[in-house]
Amino acid sequence: MKSFRRELWFNIPTRRAFKNITSEVQTAVSESGVKEGLVLVNAMHITASVFINDDESGLHQDYEKWLEWLAPHEPVNRYLHNRTGEDNGDAHLKRQIMGREVVVAITGGKLDLGPWEQIFYGEFDGRRKKRVLIKIIGE
Amino acid sequence: MKSFRRELWFNIPTRRAFKNITSEVQTAVSESGVKEGLVLVNAMHITASVFINDDESGLHQDYEKWLEWLAPHEPVNRYLHNRTGEDNGDAHLKRQIMGREVVVAITGGKLDLGPWEQIFYGEFDGRRKKRVLIKIIGE
Amino acid sequence: MKSFRRELWFNIPTRRAFKNITSEVQTAVSESGVKEGLVLVNAMHITASVFINDDESGLHQDYEKWLEWLAPHEPVNRYLHNRTGEDNGDAHLKRQIMGREVVVAITGGKLDLGPWEQIFYGEFDGRRKKRVLIKIIGE
Repeated sequence: MKSFRRELWFNIPTRRAFKNITSEVQTAVSESGVKEGLVLVNAMHITASVFINDDESGLHQDYEKWLEWLAPHEPVNRYLHNRTGEDNGDAHLKRQIMGREVVVAITGGKLDLGPWEQIFYGEFDGRRKKRVLIKIIGE
Repeated sequence: MKSFRRELWFNIPTRRAFKNITSEVQTAVSESGVKEGLVLVNAMHITASVFINDDESGLHQDYEKWLEWLAPHEPVNRYLHNRTGEDNGDAHLKRQIMGREVVVAITGGKLDLGPWEQIFYGEFDGRRKKRVLIKIIGE
Repeated sequence: MKSFRRELWFNIPTRRAFKNITSEVQTAVSESGVKEGLVLVNAMHITASVFINDDESGLHQDYEKWLEWLAPHEPVNRYLHNRTGEDNGDAHLKRQIMGREVVVAITGGKLDLGPWEQIFYGEFDGRRKKRVLIKIIGE
Protein backbone atom coordinates (compact mmCIF):
# COMPACT_ATOMS: atom_id res chain seq x y z
CA MET A 1 0.00 0.00 0.00
CA LYS A 2 1.24 3.47 -0.91
CA SER A 3 0.46 6.67 0.94
CA PHE A 4 1.02 10.30 0.03
CA ARG A 5 0.50 13.57 1.92
CA ARG A 6 0.35 17.17 0.76
CA GLU A 7 -0.81 20.46 2.23
CA LEU A 8 -2.33 23.24 0.13
CA TRP A 9 -1.95 26.71 1.63
CA PHE A 10 -4.26 29.65 0.98
CA ASN A 11 -4.44 33.27 1.98
CA ILE A 12 -7.87 34.33 0.77
CA PRO A 13 -8.03 38.17 0.69
CA THR A 14 -11.75 38.32 1.61
CA ARG A 15 -13.70 36.98 4.56
CA ARG A 16 -15.56 34.44 2.41
CA ALA A 17 -14.82 32.79 -0.94
CA PHE A 18 -15.00 29.53 -2.86
CA LYS A 19 -11.86 28.34 -4.66
CA ASN A 20 -11.69 25.45 -7.14
CA ILE A 21 -8.86 23.10 -6.09
CA THR A 22 -9.64 20.14 -8.39
CA SER A 23 -6.47 20.46 -10.44
CA GLU A 24 -4.24 20.69 -7.35
CA VAL A 25 -5.83 17.50 -6.01
CA GLN A 26 -5.40 15.72 -9.37
CA THR A 27 -1.72 16.79 -9.41
CA ALA A 28 -1.22 15.23 -5.99
CA VAL A 29 -2.93 12.01 -7.14
CA SER A 30 -0.66 11.84 -10.20
CA GLU A 31 2.50 12.45 -8.14
CA SER A 32 1.49 9.82 -5.61
CA GLY A 33 1.64 7.07 -8.22
CA VAL A 34 -1.56 5.59 -6.77
CA LYS A 35 -3.73 4.03 -9.50
CA GLU A 36 -6.53 2.57 -7.35
CA GLY A 37 -7.39 4.02 -3.98
CA LEU A 38 -9.00 6.85 -2.05
CA VAL A 39 -8.07 10.49 -1.56
CA LEU A 40 -9.19 12.42 1.51
CA VAL A 41 -9.26 16.21 1.12
CA ASN A 42 -10.08 18.13 4.30
CA ALA A 43 -9.90 21.63 5.69
CA MET A 44 -7.40 21.72 8.57
CA HIS A 45 -9.23 24.74 10.01
CA ILE A 46 -12.64 24.71 11.63
CA THR A 47 -13.97 27.80 9.89
CA ALA A 48 -13.46 26.43 6.37
CA SER A 49 -14.86 23.62 4.24
CA VAL A 50 -13.92 21.29 1.44
CA PHE A 51 -16.93 20.30 -0.67
CA ILE A 52 -17.88 19.13 -4.15
CA ASN A 53 -20.35 20.97 -6.33
CA ASP A 54 -20.62 22.99 -9.57
CA ASP A 55 -18.15 25.65 -10.72
CA GLU A 56 -20.86 28.20 -11.58
CA SER A 57 -20.71 31.75 -10.26
CA GLY A 58 -24.47 32.18 -9.87
CA LEU A 59 -24.60 29.08 -7.68
CA HIS A 60 -21.73 30.36 -5.56
CA GLN A 61 -23.64 33.60 -4.98
CA ASP A 62 -26.69 31.52 -4.05
CA TYR A 63 -24.58 29.65 -1.49
CA GLU A 64 -23.24 32.91 -0.07
CA LYS A 65 -26.73 34.38 0.36
CA TRP A 66 -28.16 31.13 1.75
CA LEU A 67 -25.36 30.65 4.29
CA GLU A 68 -25.79 34.24 5.46
CA TRP A 69 -29.50 33.54 6.03
CA LEU A 70 -28.70 30.31 7.90
CA ALA A 71 -25.92 31.81 10.02
CA PRO A 72 -25.60 35.61 9.69
CA HIS A 73 -22.21 37.16 10.37
CA GLU A 74 -23.76 40.14 12.17
CA PRO A 75 -24.50 41.17 14.79
CA VAL A 76 -21.37 39.39 16.00
CA ASN A 77 -22.71 39.37 19.58
CA ARG A 78 -25.43 36.90 18.56
CA TYR A 79 -22.82 34.14 18.98
CA LEU A 80 -21.54 33.21 22.45
CA HIS A 81 -18.36 31.98 20.75
CA ASN A 82 -17.53 35.59 19.93
CA ARG A 83 -17.18 36.36 23.66
CA THR A 84 -13.73 34.78 23.27
CA GLY A 85 -12.77 37.89 21.27
CA GLU A 86 -13.35 36.24 17.89
CA ASP A 87 -15.86 37.49 15.32
CA ASN A 88 -16.11 34.19 13.43
CA GLY A 89 -18.94 32.39 15.26
CA ASP A 90 -20.95 32.34 12.03
CA ALA A 91 -18.06 30.69 10.17
CA HIS A 92 -18.11 27.66 12.52
CA LEU A 93 -21.82 27.18 11.69
CA LYS A 94 -21.50 27.76 7.94
CA ARG A 95 -18.73 25.16 7.79
CA GLN A 96 -21.06 22.50 9.26
CA ILE A 97 -23.51 23.06 6.38
CA MET A 98 -20.84 22.81 3.68
CA GLY A 99 -18.80 20.07 5.40
CA ARG A 100 -15.20 19.52 6.46
CA GLU A 101 -14.00 16.99 3.93
CA VAL A 102 -14.56 14.93 0.83
CA VAL A 103 -13.37 11.42 0.03
CA VAL A 104 -12.95 10.77 -3.69
CA ALA A 105 -12.23 7.49 -5.47
CA ILE A 106 -9.03 7.13 -7.52
CA THR A 107 -9.45 4.89 -10.58
CA GLY A 108 -6.75 4.39 -13.21
CA GLY A 109 -4.66 7.13 -11.57
CA LYS A 110 -7.40 9.76 -11.97
CA LEU A 111 -9.97 11.40 -9.68
CA ASP A 112 -13.13 9.36 -10.34
CA LEU A 113 -15.54 12.31 -10.50
CA GLY A 114 -18.91 12.73 -12.20
CA PRO A 115 -19.12 15.11 -15.19
CA TRP A 116 -19.84 18.28 -13.19
CA GLU A 117 -18.13 17.44 -9.90
CA GLN A 118 -15.47 19.96 -8.90
CA ILE A 119 -13.66 20.15 -5.55
CA PHE A 120 -13.81 23.48 -3.70
CA TYR A 121 -12.16 25.09 -0.73
CA GLY A 122 -14.81 27.11 1.08
CA GLU A 123 -13.41 29.96 3.16
CA PHE A 124 -15.64 31.55 5.81
CA ASP A 125 -13.04 33.47 7.84
CA GLY A 126 -10.24 34.44 5.50
CA ARG A 127 -7.61 37.16 5.33
CA ARG A 128 -4.99 34.85 6.90
CA LYS A 129 -3.00 31.76 5.98
CA LYS A 130 -4.96 28.52 6.17
CA ARG A 131 -4.52 25.06 4.70
CA VAL A 132 -6.07 21.92 3.30
CA LEU A 133 -4.75 18.38 3.76
CA ILE A 134 -4.62 15.86 0.92
CA LYS A 135 -4.03 12.26 2.03
CA ILE A 136 -3.92 9.45 -0.51
CA ILE A 137 -3.84 5.71 0.11
CA GLY A 138 -3.92 2.90 -2.41
CA GLU A 139 -1.77 1.01 -4.87
CA MET B 1 -4.72 -4.46 -1.33
CA LYS B 2 -7.85 -5.13 -3.39
CA SER B 3 -10.00 -2.51 -5.04
CA PHE B 4 -13.43 -2.74 -6.64
CA ARG B 5 -15.59 -0.24 -8.54
CA ARG B 6 -19.26 -0.26 -9.46
CA GLU B 7 -21.76 2.31 -10.70
CA LEU B 8 -25.44 2.19 -9.76
CA TRP B 9 -27.74 3.91 -12.29
CA PHE B 10 -31.13 5.41 -11.49
CA ASN B 11 -33.90 7.11 -13.41
CA ILE B 12 -36.16 8.43 -10.66
CA PRO B 13 -39.58 9.31 -12.18
CA THR B 14 -40.19 12.26 -9.79
CA ARG B 15 -38.19 15.40 -9.05
CA ARG B 16 -37.36 14.26 -5.52
CA ALA B 17 -37.19 10.84 -3.82
CA PHE B 18 -35.22 8.74 -1.36
CA LYS B 19 -34.23 5.22 -2.44
CA ASN B 20 -32.74 2.57 -0.16
CA ILE B 21 -29.56 1.19 -1.80
CA THR B 22 -28.17 -0.79 1.15
CA SER B 23 -28.59 -4.20 -0.49
CA GLU B 24 -26.91 -3.05 -3.72
CA VAL B 25 -23.93 -1.78 -1.72
CA GLN B 26 -23.72 -5.04 0.27
CA THR B 27 -23.80 -7.01 -3.00
CA ALA B 28 -20.84 -4.99 -4.29
CA VAL B 29 -18.95 -5.60 -1.03
CA SER B 30 -19.59 -9.34 -1.30
CA GLU B 31 -18.49 -9.48 -4.94
CA SER B 32 -15.33 -7.49 -4.18
CA GLY B 33 -14.03 -10.23 -1.89
CA VAL B 34 -12.86 -7.54 0.56
CA LYS B 35 -13.20 -8.74 4.17
CA GLU B 36 -11.66 -5.73 5.98
CA GLY B 37 -11.69 -2.29 4.45
CA LEU B 38 -13.72 0.78 3.56
CA VAL B 39 -16.44 1.43 1.02
CA LEU B 40 -17.07 4.90 -0.38
CA VAL B 41 -20.55 5.48 -1.80
CA ASN B 42 -21.04 8.86 -3.47
CA ALA B 43 -23.44 10.63 -5.78
CA MET B 44 -21.68 11.41 -9.08
CA HIS B 45 -24.15 14.28 -9.64
CA ILE B 46 -24.21 17.55 -7.75
CA THR B 47 -27.99 17.67 -7.28
CA ALA B 48 -28.17 14.32 -5.46
CA SER B 49 -26.98 12.86 -2.16
CA VAL B 50 -25.93 9.61 -0.57
CA PHE B 51 -26.70 9.53 3.15
CA ILE B 52 -27.42 7.14 6.00
CA ASN B 53 -30.54 7.30 8.10
CA ASP B 54 -33.74 5.40 8.93
CA ASP B 55 -35.98 3.64 6.38
CA GLU B 56 -39.21 5.14 7.76
CA SER B 57 -41.71 6.86 5.47
CA GLY B 58 -42.79 9.50 8.00
CA LEU B 59 -39.19 10.57 8.45
CA HIS B 60 -38.71 10.81 4.69
CA GLN B 61 -41.75 13.11 4.48
CA ASP B 62 -40.25 15.17 7.32
CA TYR B 63 -37.01 15.50 5.34
CA GLU B 64 -38.92 16.52 2.21
CA LYS B 65 -40.84 19.26 4.07
CA TRP B 66 -37.75 20.45 5.95
CA LEU B 67 -35.57 20.67 2.84
CA GLU B 68 -38.31 22.63 1.05
CA TRP B 69 -38.33 25.08 3.96
CA LEU B 70 -34.53 25.37 3.91
CA ALA B 71 -34.25 25.72 0.11
CA PRO B 72 -37.64 26.12 -1.65
CA HIS B 73 -37.89 24.98 -5.25
CA GLU B 74 -40.07 27.96 -6.19
CA PRO B 75 -40.00 30.66 -7.27
CA VAL B 76 -37.18 29.37 -9.47
CA ASN B 77 -35.94 32.91 -10.06
CA ARG B 78 -34.89 33.18 -6.40
CA TYR B 79 -31.67 31.36 -7.41
CA LEU B 80 -29.08 33.09 -9.59
CA HIS B 81 -27.99 29.61 -10.72
CA ASN B 82 -31.29 29.29 -12.58
CA ARG B 83 -30.28 32.16 -14.90
CA THR B 84 -28.24 29.47 -16.69
CA GLY B 85 -31.58 28.03 -17.88
CA GLU B 86 -31.75 25.39 -15.14
CA ASP B 87 -34.53 25.15 -12.58
CA ASN B 88 -32.53 23.10 -10.06
CA GLY B 89 -30.85 25.78 -7.94
CA ASP B 90 -32.67 24.44 -4.88
CA ALA B 91 -31.34 20.94 -5.54
CA HIS B 92 -27.71 22.12 -5.24
CA LEU B 93 -28.53 23.54 -1.78
CA LYS B 94 -30.57 20.57 -0.56
CA ARG B 95 -27.73 18.25 -1.49
CA GLN B 96 -25.32 20.14 0.79
CA ILE B 97 -27.63 19.49 3.77
CA MET B 98 -27.95 15.78 3.06
CA GLY B 99 -24.33 15.29 1.91
CA ARG B 100 -22.54 13.88 -1.14
CA GLU B 101 -21.14 10.63 0.23
CA VAL B 102 -20.81 8.10 2.99
CA VAL B 103 -17.82 5.99 3.97
CA VAL B 104 -18.75 2.71 5.64
CA ALA B 105 -16.49 0.17 7.34
CA ILE B 106 -16.31 -3.38 5.98
CA THR B 107 -15.78 -6.01 8.69
CA GLY B 108 -15.82 -9.75 8.05
CA GLY B 109 -17.01 -9.11 4.49
CA LYS B 110 -20.14 -7.20 5.64
CA LEU B 111 -21.18 -3.56 5.84
CA ASP B 112 -20.44 -2.65 9.47
CA LEU B 113 -23.65 -0.70 10.13
CA GLY B 114 -25.55 0.06 13.31
CA PRO B 115 -28.95 -1.61 13.80
CA TRP B 116 -31.02 1.09 12.06
CA GLU B 117 -28.47 2.43 9.59
CA GLN B 118 -29.60 2.20 5.97
CA ILE B 119 -27.89 3.79 2.95
CA PHE B 120 -30.04 6.05 0.75
CA TYR B 121 -29.76 7.73 -2.60
CA GLY B 122 -31.39 11.16 -2.28
CA GLU B 123 -32.63 12.57 -5.57
CA PHE B 124 -33.40 16.30 -5.76
CA ASP B 125 -33.58 16.77 -9.55
CA GLY B 126 -34.76 13.51 -11.06
CA ARG B 127 -36.59 12.43 -14.19
CA ARG B 128 -33.29 11.61 -15.92
CA LYS B 129 -30.51 9.03 -15.68
CA LYS B 130 -28.07 9.60 -12.84
CA ARG B 131 -25.58 7.45 -11.00
CA VAL B 132 -23.81 6.57 -7.77
CA LEU B 133 -20.22 5.35 -7.45
CA ILE B 134 -19.22 2.51 -5.14
CA LYS B 135 -15.48 2.23 -4.53
CA ILE B 136 -14.10 -0.44 -2.21
CA ILE B 137 -10.56 -0.84 -0.92
CA GLY B 138 -9.20 -3.38 1.54
CA GLU B 139 -8.12 -6.98 1.82
CA MET C 1 -2.53 -3.71 4.88
CA LYS C 2 -3.58 -3.60 8.52
CA SER C 3 -7.08 -3.04 9.81
CA PHE C 4 -8.39 -2.30 13.29
CA ARG C 5 -11.90 -1.95 14.72
CA ARG C 6 -13.14 -0.50 18.00
CA GLU C 7 -16.50 0.58 19.37
CA LEU C 8 -16.88 3.44 21.84
CA TRP C 9 -20.00 3.23 24.02
CA PHE C 10 -21.77 6.18 25.60
CA ASN C 11 -24.74 6.72 27.88
CA ILE C 12 -25.22 10.47 27.79
CA PRO C 13 -27.47 11.51 30.73
CA THR C 14 -29.15 14.36 28.81
CA ARG C 15 -31.10 14.47 25.55
CA ARG C 16 -28.38 16.47 23.80
CA ALA C 17 -24.65 16.93 24.39
CA PHE C 18 -21.29 17.21 22.66
CA LYS C 19 -18.46 14.99 23.92
CA ASN C 20 -14.80 15.30 22.88
CA ILE C 21 -13.55 11.83 21.79
CA THR C 22 -10.23 12.86 20.23
CA SER C 23 -8.07 11.08 22.80
CA GLU C 24 -10.07 7.83 22.49
CA VAL C 25 -9.59 7.92 18.71
CA GLN C 26 -5.85 8.61 19.06
CA THR C 27 -5.57 5.67 21.49
CA ALA C 28 -7.18 3.39 18.90
CA VAL C 29 -4.80 4.66 16.22
CA SER C 30 -1.80 3.99 18.48
CA GLU C 31 -2.99 0.47 19.36
CA SER C 32 -3.64 -0.34 15.70
CA GLY C 33 0.02 0.07 14.84
CA VAL C 34 -0.97 1.89 11.64
CA LYS C 35 1.54 4.61 10.76
CA GLU C 36 0.08 5.79 7.43
CA GLY C 37 -3.61 5.39 6.62
CA LEU C 38 -7.12 6.57 7.26
CA VAL C 39 -9.43 6.35 10.26
CA LEU C 40 -13.21 6.40 9.86
CA VAL C 41 -15.15 7.49 12.95
CA ASN C 42 -18.93 7.23 12.62
CA ALA C 43 -22.02 7.26 14.78
CA MET C 44 -23.70 3.83 14.58
CA HIS C 45 -27.03 5.48 15.49
CA ILE C 46 -29.09 7.72 13.24
CA THR C 47 -29.88 10.34 15.89
CA ALA C 48 -26.23 11.14 16.66
CA SER C 49 -23.25 12.64 14.86
CA VAL C 50 -19.49 12.54 14.74
CA PHE C 51 -18.00 15.86 13.65
CA ILE C 52 -14.87 17.96 13.94
CA ASN C 53 -14.85 21.47 15.31
CA ASP C 54 -13.60 23.57 18.23
CA ASP C 55 -13.69 22.53 21.91
CA GLU C 56 -15.16 25.83 23.10
CA SER C 57 -18.24 25.91 25.32
CA GLY C 58 -19.70 29.12 23.86
CA LEU C 59 -19.59 27.58 20.38
CA HIS C 60 -21.30 24.43 21.65
CA GLN C 61 -24.10 26.57 23.08
CA ASP C 62 -24.34 28.36 19.72
CA TYR C 63 -24.71 24.97 17.98
CA GLU C 64 -27.40 23.91 20.46
CA LYS C 65 -29.44 27.09 19.88
CA TRP C 66 -28.94 26.99 16.11
CA LEU C 67 -29.94 23.33 15.77
CA GLU C 68 -33.07 24.00 17.84
CA TRP C 69 -33.96 26.81 15.43
CA LEU C 70 -33.32 24.60 12.41
CA ALA C 71 -35.19 21.57 13.79
CA PRO C 72 -37.09 22.27 17.03
CA HIS C 73 -37.72 19.38 19.39
CA GLU C 74 -41.24 20.61 20.21
CA PRO C 75 -44.05 20.35 19.47
CA VAL C 76 -43.20 16.69 18.88
CA ASN C 77 -46.25 16.28 16.64
CA ARG C 78 -44.66 18.55 14.03
CA TYR C 79 -42.74 15.46 12.81
CA LEU C 80 -44.56 12.62 11.05
CA HIS C 81 -41.77 10.33 12.25
CA ASN C 82 -43.07 10.77 15.79
CA ARG C 83 -46.33 9.01 14.82
CA THR C 84 -44.28 5.82 15.25
CA GLY C 85 -44.34 6.56 19.00
CA GLU C 86 -40.88 8.16 19.02
CA ASP C 87 -40.23 11.75 20.10
CA ASN C 88 -36.89 12.06 18.29
CA GLY C 89 -37.91 13.31 14.84
CA ASP C 90 -35.88 16.47 15.43
CA ALA C 91 -32.77 14.41 16.22
CA HIS C 92 -32.82 12.74 12.78
CA LEU C 93 -32.76 16.23 11.20
CA LYS C 94 -30.13 17.73 13.50
CA ARG C 95 -27.84 14.80 12.77
CA GLN C 96 -27.94 15.59 9.02
CA ILE C 97 -26.64 19.11 9.71
CA MET C 98 -23.78 17.92 11.91
CA GLY C 99 -22.99 14.78 9.87
CA ARG C 100 -22.65 11.05 10.50
CA GLU C 101 -18.90 10.56 10.22
CA VAL C 102 -15.43 11.95 9.81
CA VAL C 103 -12.46 10.48 7.97
CA VAL C 104 -9.10 11.59 9.36
CA ALA C 105 -5.63 11.01 7.94
CA ILE C 106 -3.07 9.06 9.98
CA THR C 107 0.51 10.26 9.47
CA GLY C 108 3.47 8.96 11.44
CA GLY C 109 1.08 7.04 13.72
CA LYS C 110 -0.81 10.19 14.77
CA LEU C 111 -4.14 11.77 13.87
CA ASP C 112 -3.19 14.35 11.25
CA LEU C 113 -5.38 17.20 12.57
CA GLY C 114 -5.10 20.96 12.23
CA PRO C 115 -4.24 22.98 15.34
CA TRP C 116 -7.84 23.44 16.57
CA GLU C 117 -9.47 20.32 15.14
CA GLN C 118 -11.10 18.13 17.79
CA ILE C 119 -13.37 15.13 17.18
CA PHE C 120 -16.80 15.19 18.86
CA TYR C 121 -19.64 12.81 19.45
CA GLY C 122 -22.86 14.76 19.06
CA GLU C 123 -25.83 13.26 20.90
CA PHE C 124 -29.34 14.41 19.96
CA ASP C 125 -31.42 11.67 21.63
CA GLY C 126 -29.51 10.47 24.66
CA ARG C 127 -30.33 8.88 28.01
CA ARG C 128 -29.59 5.41 26.61
CA LYS C 129 -26.58 3.37 25.49
CA LYS C 130 -25.29 4.27 22.04
CA ARG C 131 -22.02 3.75 20.22
CA VAL C 132 -19.44 5.02 17.75
CA LEU C 133 -17.39 2.87 15.37
CA ILE C 134 -13.68 3.45 14.77
CA LYS C 135 -12.30 1.64 11.71
CA ILE C 136 -8.65 2.05 10.75
CA ILE C 137 -6.90 0.87 7.59
CA GLY C 138 -3.32 1.42 6.52
CA GLU C 139 0.21 0.20 7.14
